[in-house]
Amino acid sequence: MSDLLALRVELPPWIAGFRAALPACLETPEQRMEVAIDLSRQNVLAGSGGPFGALVVAEDSGEVVALGVNRVEPGSCSSAHAEIVALSMAQRLAADWNLGRHPAAPLQLVSSCEPCAMCLGAIPWSGVASVLCGATKADAEAAGFDEGDRPDEWMEKMAARGIRVHIGLMRAEAAAVLDLYARSGKTIYGPDSRVAGK
Amino acid sequence: MSDLLALRVELPPWIAGFRAALPACLETPEQRMEVAIDLSRQNVLAGSGGPFGALVVAEDSGEVVALGVNRVEPGSCSSAHAEIVALSMAQRLAADWNLGRHPAAPLQLVSSCEPCAMCLGAIPWSGVASVLCGATKADAEAAGFDEGDRPDEWMEKMAARGIRVHIGLMRAEAAAVLDLYARSGKTIYGPDSRVAGK
Repeated sequence: MSDLLALRVELPPWIAGFRAALPACLETPEQRMEVAIDLSRQNVLAGSGGPFGALVVAEDSGEVVALGVNRVEPGSCSSAHAEIVALSMAQRLAADWNLGRHPAAPLQLVSSCEPCAMCLGAIPWSGVASVLCGATKADAEAAGFDEGDRPDEWMEKMAARGIRVHIGLMRAEAAAVLDLYARSGKTIYGPDSRVAGK
Repeated sequence: MSDLLALRVELPPWIAGFRAALPACLETPEQRMEVAIDLSRQNVLAGSGGPFGALVVAEDSGEVVALGVNRVEPGSCSSAHAEIVALSMAQRLAADWNLGRHPAAPLQLVSSCEPCAMCLGAIPWSGVASVLCGATKADAEAAGFDEGDRPDEWMEKMAARGIRVHIGLMRAEAAAVLDLYARSGKTIYGPDSRVAGK
């Protein structure tokens, strides 16, 4: 084990062009969610990972800080969910694990789907101030994904940490991508055929 | 954002020598935990991250599959907890996100401390069959760390997923490293000074 690189997950090549076509700022919640959903759809269409997209923006101006898509299969990394990828990318670009100190803070995580247990746990450690989600747990489960065991009243617990969460923005559009993936017969990945992690 | 590398976390250079000095197999739970605790202590002494170490081994033979230490600060990545680093390293070496399919499976995650909410959520997605922990939530909190909001009865929920968890093996030795770190005045990192993520 002379190899010391523990985590190495790349975004798919199409992200560069996608990013270049975005405006510098996404002012409204709907504009932000539309980008998250577009990321999830493009990831399915390009075959570059699971049907999940996320981005980190400046809460006030909507300045785009970082993009992420699910890269579990292509990255050989079960933790490479869209939310972890977007948060980690924002942190790496800022060379700081604490996005609460980011020059554009307060920052917002925008995700095409409600976060699983792992991503929920990751959010308070990341330093983002708020979270905006499209599809719901029920939508993810209807497509065959497992959200994991999350704490009861987790939204209240996030609020107690000063993190505001909103779920269900443009839900139908977001859920349609989960359905597209499920109907494509692609892998519902998880530790085995019984358990499907997002 | 022409940079497509979203996650890049390296193990510290001292890991290579540490790994070379280990036997190929760690047969007993105590031998495995001793290595996890040694990793956590060495990480503190070398100043290469937080006071947490983890490894992935073959459950039956004890064959060492991958090592991990906390790299939140040096890796600029709030998700680079020891458990995520060890699991991701094992997955990258196997070029498979599902450790349930690993040639040496069933695999065990051994951690110097009880996992936080994020790492708990990550465990079922990784494909490991069991988890062995040293220090407890109370020990982590006594040193100033936050374990996050975890589901009630999470050990039962893990068991329902077929994942066995044991906590408190060599607890005193594991907790002593947390105490060493806390007394050193090093960063208790988290999104801000109020919240300290492991």
